[in-house]
Amino acid sequence: MTNIHPVAPELQVSQWLNTLRSITLADLRGRVVVLHAFQMLCPGCVSHGLPQAAAIHETFPAADVAVIGIHSVFEHHSAMTPVALEAFLYEYHIRFPVAVDRPSTTGNIPHTMEAFNMRGTPTLILLDRQGRIRLNHFGRMDDLRVGATIGQLVSEAAIDPNSNQYQEQPAAGRVGCDNEECAISDNMGQASA
Amino acid sequence: MTNIHPVAPELQVSQWLNTLRSITLADLRGRVVVLHAFQMLCPGCVSHGLPQAAAIHETFPAADVAVIGIHSVFEHHSAMTPVALEAFLYEYHIRFPVAVDRPSTTGNIPHTMEAFNMRGTPTLILLDRQGRIRLNHFGRMDDLRVGATIGQLVSEAAIDPNSNQYQEQPAAGRVGCDNEECAISDNMGQASA
Amino acid sequence: MTNIHPVAPELQVSQWLNTLRSITLADLRGRVVVLHAFQMLCPGCVSHGLPQAAAIHETFPAADVAVIGIHSVFEHHSAMTPVALEAFLYEYHIRFPVAVDRPSTTGNIPHTMEAFNMRGTPTLILLDRQGRIRLNHFGRMDDLRVGATIGQLVSEAAIDPNSNQYQEQPAAGRVGCDNEECAISDNMGQASA
Amino acid sequence: MTNIHPVAPELQVSQWLNTLRSITLADLRGRVVVLHAFQMLCPGCVSHGLPQAAAIHETFPAADVAVIGIHSVFEHHSAMTPVALEAFLYEYHIRFPVAVDRPSTTGNIPHTMEAFNMRGTPTLILLDRQGRIRLNHFGRMDDLRVGATIGQLVSEAAIDPNSNQYQEQPAAGRVGCDNEECAISDNMGQASA
Repeated sequence: MTNIHPVAPELQVSQWLNTLRSITLADLRGRVVVLHAFQMLCPGCVSHGLPQAAAIHETFPAADVAVIGIHSVFEHHSAMTPVALEAFLYEYHIRFPVAVDRPSTTGNIPHTMEAFNMRGTPTLILLDRQGRIRLNHFGRMDDLRVGATIGQLVSEAAIDPNSNQYQEQPAAGRVGCDNEECAISDNMGQASA
Repeated sequence: MTNIHPVAPELQVSQWLNTLRSITLADLRGRVVVLHAFQMLCPGCVSHGLPQAAAIHETFPAADVAVIGIHSVFEHHSAMTPVALEAFLYEYHIRFPVAVDRPSTTGNIPHTMEAFNMRGTPTLILLDRQGRIRLNHFGRMDDLRVGATIGQLVSEAAIDPNSNQYQEQPAAGRVGCDNEECAISDNMGQASA
Repeated sequence: MTNIHPVAPELQVSQWLNTLRSITLADLRGRVVVLHAFQMLCPGCVSHGLPQAAAIHETFPAADVAVIGIHSVFEHHSAMTPVALEAFLYEYHIRFPVAVDRPSTTGNIPHTMEAFNMRGTPTLILLDRQGRIRLNHFGRMDDLRVGATIGQLVSEAAIDPNSNQYQEQPAAGRVGCDNEECAISDNMGQASA
Repeated sequence: MTNIHPVAPELQVSQWLNTLRSITLADLRGRVVVLHAFQMLCPGCVSHGLPQAAAIHETFPAADVAVIGIHSVFEHHSAMTPVALEAFLYEYHIRFPVAVDRPSTTGNIPHTMEAFNMRGTPTLILLDRQGRIRLNHFGRMDDLRVGATIGQLVSEAAIDPNSNQYQEQPAAGRVGCDNEECAISDNMGQASA
């Protein structure tokens, strides 16, 4: 039964911003981890996902909850460069550490995005104190529900991760960006697949 | 140590709406209880508090979380009558049970409001599965924080209530209504005091 | 051609609030007049219509634009009494004059509401400087469009009212209240009809 | 008296997007012109200015009102390139023509921005049917007021531009970006000055 909540794979990062040193998920064992995967030109990330991640970062004590942004670019690669991301983070006052997801050499989907089976941006991933994936949500999720899940994970004594979660309903099979999210298209050159 | 989180006093109710039978807090032992005290002419209750209570009611399974509205009128008594409340609940599509807080015969503050030491409306009170008061918040509280507290209470095995809560900061000493809340004035005829 | 924009009928008022003396539309000739018909328990009026009317009142010079609220109760008469309205206006900080639409003795629809052929609340009516009806809109209307129409009426030299208006699309035939508006039902006892 | 409202200088454009051919202000004589100057990484432009410009574009008939975006980059030049802008416009569904403000060879402020004496982004500029500048506003401006000014300009018979405008209050002397706007700093290398 230990496989019900798999341990998250490590982040694959080509560059870190907003932090002086690299961060690994292994370093964060013992804390709840909030991973927010975004693209700087994804409207739903800018209007909803990143403000929510920032609010989580402000609301919960750092000793309990770590917030990490992951810039997982799967489209418009020439527009969303690290230098553009740096300006974006500065102008939007994003304070928490942000990892640039390592680009694939053979396709559009960067490595961390693929390793976590993300379907697009924004994606919210929650890890428990033992590093197990307890939520992997594509698209908008309201604060009440996000808060409830984090509150539950925070209160766990880092022992039993097999408690019940709020069920994820699969999102509609959209492709491209709308106001809420940017979905990976089916034929977007996951050349390795 | 058992007094750290006192057991909530019973509701004092002159009339119930949105339910066929009376409800006591004792009936709800084993579930987390959300009490939302409001006035139908309190702007902050209408714009924020009641929609939040309704969202809690929709988000959490009824087996885990019970939501109860309390109409605690401490001003404009001739305007906020039960018949007016009934029309209000109908037009605003409030579905959860609502108690009319029993009016005082000697002052403006109704009995449940006084028993819980509420400072005005909206007030959000959270009880754990054992009926102990774990949060008593006057004014606006954001969804992320409310969700986190409920999520924590839901995950408790109905055993140990003495865990840490997010700290309440005392609100400013306003009197009367602004967009966010209606505060009881100091000289508002709590004749029994 | 003078009938293209009919002159508005006079208001029929049983009581005025927020003003020391009665107001007639005839008194307001030479100014653009904004009539906002609402019910205090109409959710769309509270969340959108009244804040918009208040913003108009603050934005435009009183010498150019007069804003008048009309409390046109066609349902829940026992809840939306003048005493309740007075408390409501106080708590919601409504500053502009409000007329209580004169109740019908034979049906549910008050007299001004019927004289203007209103279909429910909120209704926004704009009169030009000559007292002619230039807009009669049931339901929500965005600020950009409302501003444009008022701006045009303000700039008219009180001479030629026959200029083009933005077209009104008929709203859907709903009955009862939703978040946006409260519609008069077809059989709501317009006994005089 | 003809100098009260000066005729706008021509746009200085290095590249057009969302249009097959170049546009000049001279081409637009006879129509009201809305110029919205923005930067793609200016938070206030993304959250407020561009949605407002898009709403103007949708609300008013093209025969009366032309909407033009101007990408006036005065900071983070390496991040806000034309290729990045193109991706941005695509993802945010901006449909109206957008000009890339011609960069200065000697400083940070592009030529159109300097010619119009803009103080930062977003800036909203309104021209009357004769091409005269009737509003030049830095920062947020609410829809009611913008609508009123456009409505007035639309109703003018393209004859007398010297009517009264709503007064502009000078904005606070901020430098850099906040949620609302990005202000040009005083020492930002206007080398030509």
